[in-house]
Amino acid sequence: MVAFQNDYIAGAHPEILKKLTETNLESLPGYGSDHYCESAKEKIKAACGCPEAEVEFLVGGTQTNMIIVSTMLREYEGVVAATTGHVNVHESGAIEYSGHKVLTIPQKNGKIEAAGLRHFLEVFYADGTQEHMVFPGMVYISHPTEYGTLYSKEELENIAAVCHEYKMPLFLDGARLGYGLMSYDTDVTLQDIARICDVFYIGGTKVGALCGEAVVFTKGNEPAHFENRIKKRGALLAKGRLLGIQFDTLFTDDLYFKIGRHAIDMAEKMKEIVREKGYEFFIDSPTNQQFVILKNSDMERIAENVVFSVWEPVDADHTAVRFATSWATTDEDLAALKKAL
Amino acid sequence: MVAFQNDYIAGAHPEILKKLTETNLESLPGYGSDHYCESAKEKIKAACGCPEAEVEFLVGGTQTNMIIVSTMLREYEGVVAATTGHVNVHESGAIEYSGHKVLTIPQKNGKIEAAGLRHFLEVFYADGTQEHMVFPGMVYISHPTEYGTLYSKEELENIAAVCHEYKMPLFLDGARLGYGLMSYDTDVTLQDIARICDVFYIGGTKVGALCGEAVVFTKGNEPAHFENRIKKRGALLAKGRLLGIQFDTLFTDDLYFKIGRHAIDMAEKMKEIVREKGYEFFIDSPTNQQFVILKNSDMERIAENVVFSVWEPVDADHTAVRFATSWATTDEDLAALKKAL
Amino acid sequence: MVAFQNDYIAGAHPEILKKLTETNLESLPGYGSDHYCESAKEKIKAACGCPEAEVEFLVGGTQTNMIIVSTMLREYEGVVAATTGHVNVHESGAIEYSGHKVLTIPQKNGKIEAAGLRHFLEVFYADGTQEHMVFPGMVYISHPTEYGTLYSKEELENIAAVCHEYKMPLFLDGARLGYGLMSYDTDVTLQDIARICDVFYIGGTKVGALCGEAVVFTKGNEPAHFENRIKKRGALLAKGRLLGIQFDTLFTDDLYFKIGRHAIDMAEKMKEIVREKGYEFFIDSPTNQQFVILKNSDMERIAENVVFSVWEPVDADHTAVRFATSWATTDEDLAALKKAL
Amino acid sequence: MVAFQNDYIAGAHPEILKKLTETNLESLPGYGSDHYCESAKEKIKAACGCPEAEVEFLVGGTQTNMIIVSTMLREYEGVVAATTGHVNVHESGAIEYSGHKVLTIPQKNGKIEAAGLRHFLEVFYADGTQEHMVFPGMVYISHPTEYGTLYSKEELENIAAVCHEYKMPLFLDGARLGYGLMSYDTDVTLQDIARICDVFYIGGTKVGALCGEAVVFTKGNEPAHFENRIKKRGALLAKGRLLGIQFDTLFTDDLYFKIGRHAIDMAEKMKEIVREKGYEFFIDSPTNQQFVILKNSDMERIAENVVFSVWEPVDADHTAVRFATSWATTDEDLAALKKAL
Repeated sequence: MVAFQNDYIAGAHPEILKKLTETNLESLPGYGSDHYCESAKEKIKAACGCPEAEVEFLVGGTQTNMIIVSTMLREYEGVVAATTGHVNVHESGAIEYSGHKVLTIPQKNGKIEAAGLRHFLEVFYADGTQEHMVFPGMVYISHPTEYGTLYSKEELENIAAVCHEYKMPLFLDGARLGYGLMSYDTDVTLQDIARICDVFYIGGTKVGALCGEAVVFTKGNEPAHFENRIKKRGALLAKGRLLGIQFDTLFTDDLYFKIGRHAIDMAEKMKEIVREKGYEFFIDSPTNQQFVILKNSDMERIAENVVFSVWEPVDADHTAVRFATSWATTDEDLAALKKAL
Repeated sequence: MVAFQNDYIAGAHPEILKKLTETNLESLPGYGSDHYCESAKEKIKAACGCPEAEVEFLVGGTQTNMIIVSTMLREYEGVVAATTGHVNVHESGAIEYSGHKVLTIPQKNGKIEAAGLRHFLEVFYADGTQEHMVFPGMVYISHPTEYGTLYSKEELENIAAVCHEYKMPLFLDGARLGYGLMSYDTDVTLQDIARICDVFYIGGTKVGALCGEAVVFTKGNEPAHFENRIKKRGALLAKGRLLGIQFDTLFTDDLYFKIGRHAIDMAEKMKEIVREKGYEFFIDSPTNQQFVILKNSDMERIAENVVFSVWEPVDADHTAVRFATSWATTDEDLAALKKAL
Repeated sequence: MVAFQNDYIAGAHPEILKKLTETNLESLPGYGSDHYCESAKEKIKAACGCPEAEVEFLVGGTQTNMIIVSTMLREYEGVVAATTGHVNVHESGAIEYSGHKVLTIPQKNGKIEAAGLRHFLEVFYADGTQEHMVFPGMVYISHPTEYGTLYSKEELENIAAVCHEYKMPLFLDGARLGYGLMSYDTDVTLQDIARICDVFYIGGTKVGALCGEAVVFTKGNEPAHFENRIKKRGALLAKGRLLGIQFDTLFTDDLYFKIGRHAIDMAEKMKEIVREKGYEFFIDSPTNQQFVILKNSDMERIAENVVFSVWEPVDADHTAVRFATSWATTDEDLAALKKAL
Repeated sequence: MVAFQNDYIAGAHPEILKKLTETNLESLPGYGSDHYCESAKEKIKAACGCPEAEVEFLVGGTQTNMIIVSTMLREYEGVVAATTGHVNVHESGAIEYSGHKVLTIPQKNGKIEAAGLRHFLEVFYADGTQEHMVFPGMVYISHPTEYGTLYSKEELENIAAVCHEYKMPLFLDGARLGYGLMSYDTDVTLQDIARICDVFYIGGTKVGALCGEAVVFTKGNEPAHFENRIKKRGALLAKGRLLGIQFDTLFTDDLYFKIGRHAIDMAEKMKEIVREKGYEFFIDSPTNQQFVILKNSDMERIAENVVFSVWEPVDADHTAVRFATSWATTDEDLAALKKAL
């Protein structure tokens, strides 16, 4: 069996495990105050071209989305997201657990559009009953999106312009950011994101770490006493080194970008195979997640040799499935996939 | 400098890192559904002598306390704890973030007493205004306590008897359980705890893991859809293997108990050194945390060579400080401490 | 100026004020334990034909929606509602404040359909990732809806059948129930609602009371310690008599139904006037709220003599506006409206 | 039977009912935007000598305490209160429902002391682990207290000085403020309170209204979008007139103060009777609640003719009971009490 069901099936990039092992006996202070956390923060700020940024490490994606949304919103505000946005669909209600509403707007291939956002805001403020409604207080996007798609730099800038016109921060969920940045079809760099967004995070869990997300507050806008807020939500790690060492490694010698590039290279080869074999794509994804339409009978046959994710039914006879690559995907894996397809 | 400030200054026990490295390339399903998690659960149930128990893995202590309390309480209930209890003092309000009150009762050396608990409950139910009050719905204790002290088996049974008379679960926070179980001065085994308590957890973070706590529901009382509840609080790890592999290792060849025993052996040697050097103990602790009274001038001198935690002032000239041992404490560390004292 | 902007512009029905005045000096126990509350509960149960029901009084609609939803859902569940449902749009996020998500499904004239509900549930349970999603745990409808429309008995029964197949309670928001029950175009009685729904409330605030909503748990399903839960949300009234006396009066000599009927009679006359004057309806409403399309220039002219609510723009030149009747609407008011139109 | 069990056994002061009746048919806008609310706010600001204050009306005491605490605290802060404070004991956990902890300090006769408050704050800030603790963010006192006692002006000023030194608002719960202001033994005026406190409320429910509390933000410190915050907690009244008309009446011709004075006069006569009859006081209360120690046999006998509240047991043979006066207490009531004692 060869596994393509997602990008977190393997452990960590070997460099990370090596570094964890090398540093294991060092006595380090807890809760993120160790020098590896400090070093990782500095490297991330440098990579972002944003020396005044504030960087914080959290353990996982849901946690990070919930903490950013709930610490940056005022209590009478909600977060605006695509109907398909991760925070609206796949967080088991974590945003609502924090007391906030997700305000949804239409999407196209997982992406919102500046015009759609503006329309939503204009209608909201034209209504005379805001005291009975939830104020839009932040915009959430992910890059890549749930469908592996990417925003162009212009699209991001247009969305940010609307956000800032309405005095709302723009939050970019980068759980798979490494794959977005290394796509063959993007004009968006990490520095662009740091410049355009008010807060975003650099996903580790799905890009080669055992766990961990690095939150970047780009405009001196980290909420006060952020450590207490993290702990209040049960998210403060005693051995903060686990996150610091991982991100320090990921941002040494461009490892984070190399991981992203490897997965993209593998995904492009996979696309070639899929095309060769005559299958159609459900969505045109330029990143590490590929969504392919399979006849249901083919799907069953392929499942004997390949693990993939069932995405959604297309019609009575066809299903969209997901194949994902990661740092751990090998040419042998692709050869096995090719054979199975 | 030699470091004794707490029991989470080092990384993980080397066996854990070795196992993480060995298994790193295995393709495993996410969110705790991998076979290492399954194996770890079975081993923990066997060690508890409790085959019908349910075991779940979480990342850290605050998170675990908050999740257990808030998923097991009814909404009109609060958790009863010692005024010095961790959930009352050092969780940054995580219990309250989940909407529940901590109801405090007096303590002695960090421990509550069955009689004090019964008195609190009798007064509560004698009052005629319960509809304006928070019902006591669970009892929280920790073992070892904040002061390193331990309950005897009889004390635990007496507390449990009161809990069950009032139909409340007894919850034992075992963040440092390994040290409690391996103390020279205890008659309480893991099986006793599994039999007496309704829910407890086996701390990993402070007993040799990188992170992780194993929650044991001993009476078929795991809250329904527990995975959703974990995720709703932002606490579900994508790479659940990180917890499963660690606990599988800790419960292979009694590693968890060996770690506990090593730290206790080191602590007993430390006590001998402290006594020899003529210092007094702030509290008589039978576990890995030792609380010593230092003259303030001595404290400054010792701090030049030893890292410790300042606990609390004793009088104008004396301070109680904490020295903790762990799996990583060596005879060389103790020799250095002896020299510094 | 004549006022038609909503159904809560006047104070209380005179009978209510009279009764409050007559009983004013009686010494009564607090928090809803007085004999007027008891009497009102008995009368409501009798009117519902549901002697085993449990009735509780709350102050207002948002409060009632939030308390019912959050005390009846399990924590990992959300409430299913129309995208236009009051709980989704006009509660300032009160449902989310209680930690729960509103799961939206499509609507038609403010109503959901059994088939649409079933489709939503089938898709939800066909998905393999429920542990990352919010379980549908209750269905919310209002009767009349936000658009003044009504469900037929068959529609209610079909929705309830789907709910019960999926083991979810059906909750009916009856903030304007009196107008729904007394519509000329309904086959739904109070007894039908009590039989079909698991919980509903009889709105007082918008049907002649100063304030107050009567919640009816029809199936012995009142959440335990409901009084504590009300108080925990800051909603327990010290002088519970204020609610008890009002509902006791409303359910004496059919006052509640007479109020509803009067408003409906007035609304039907209003519809006749609107038609005569050649205006079109935005929605065909059989209850006390009428939605009329006005040319914007007409709207400005009419606004000089009539107070109404602007509902929503229809096109560049036309706007939908709302005229509502109530117990206090008089023939003189209608004559003034006719003149203004 | 004559009733003295509390100060909310009667309805509303007759002037209030009269005014509600007179204004009943006026068409008024909802949600507190009517002219009676405006007028009441102006009168309250004038009475406070505080033209720049902001005034808001809420329905009840628990609701008001919860809303003030949770909208003024930052999320990582808790409210400091006496162990006996209403918010700590008798709110069914409403403060915690809003996500905040009550931080308790010792009390004397229901009052906290500036020195005790300062000590608590010094210890908190001397501790090096604030990131694991709840920051003190506000101080809560009540005046009168749970025991009917009053702060002197000097005591209030000293507490406020500590609050402001530590940059915390001082919040005074005035659920029974009218009785405190009209006590024979006070040097504190409404203007003093408005000057000294950052926020307080003027209780209506227990001082002659059907319901209602008037919150006064004295320093231009009303939280933004307060109406949304009220509604989000289910506390926004559709017919805001119910609160506006009541407070407008209470602050016309000094009715609020007259009600307070009448109850105090009655309480002083009651004290004389109690003394004459040879009973002892449990606490020396200068307000409308009197706490008397009764032999248990006497208690049973008196209960045949008088309704009172059982407060707490004093010893095996004696119990402290509460007798309260209000606007509705008459000389006949006192004569009946005298006979019964």
